[in-house]
Amino acid sequence: MLIDQGLELLDEDECWALVEGTSVGRVGVTVAALPAIFPVNYTVLDGAVVFRTADGSKLHAASEGTVVVFEVDHVDASDRSGWSVMVLGRAEVVSDLGFALRVLDDGLEPWADGVRARIVRITPELVTGRRIVHG
Amino acid sequence: MLIDQGLELLDEDECWALVEGTSVGRVGVTVAALPAIFPVNYTVLDGAVVFRTADGSKLHAASEGTVVVFEVDHVDASDRSGWSVMVLGRAEVVSDLGFALRVLDDGLEPWADGVRARIVRITPELVTGRRIVHG
Repeated sequence: MLIDQGLELLDEDECWALVEGTSVGRVGVTVAALPAIFPVNYTVLDGAVVFRTADGSKLHAASEGTVVVFEVDHVDASDRSGWSVMVLGRAEVVSDLGFALRVLDDGLEPWADGVRARIVRITPELVTGRRIVHG
Repeated sequence: MLIDQGLELLDEDECWALVEGTSVGRVGVTVAALPAIFPVNYTVLDGAVVFRTADGSKLHAASEGTVVVFEVDHVDASDRSGWSVMVLGRAEVVSDLGFALRVLDDGLEPWADGVRARIVRITPELVTGRRIVHG
């Protein structure tokens, strides 16, 4: 177990177990040369992180063919425990109807009202995670 | 009330009330030309977002004099409610001892073990927020 400044570094399997066990994460992108973070509900399909967004939204624009970071975390203030996982990868708007239908069959529905007709897929290139350890 | 794709746009006072009522957020930075997101526990002092980090950490390096985004959110899967606030601003490592002492007096302690000797202050330039509305 590798410890760095009170944080245990998680291996890739642990990271994916945490990502697959969570339903809301955050996408970090650059919008007009400025960093931005958008929460999304998501699913994992064929090893990729998939979420929906609105056509023409900032997130849609920023996700088109660029490297983004997807992050999930959980923190518990009561005992100061917590973990976080970052998935770094190229994002692309899904144009493959077969894949899109499988995403919808997987039950990925946007939580907000309004049309979110774009499905974005992040193909992971680097997955890293850290967990707070005390002791 | 301005609605955009099922999201109500929050005014600045609402945004700050949400930021001040939360204790864990995420900092979005660029590390080696790649986006990264780090969860932090934080406080608000003199209208700035303040958190601690370890000397020499990626977050410390990325926070030095650059524009970063700080994000807080809350989502509730049970009724698909949620909100998020982004604070965009320049981050700097605090060198003012008086300010640093006030931060510590404010009770800002890192949750992980290990020394987190740097205090980073984000001076807000733009604050935006959105809340899911169903209607």
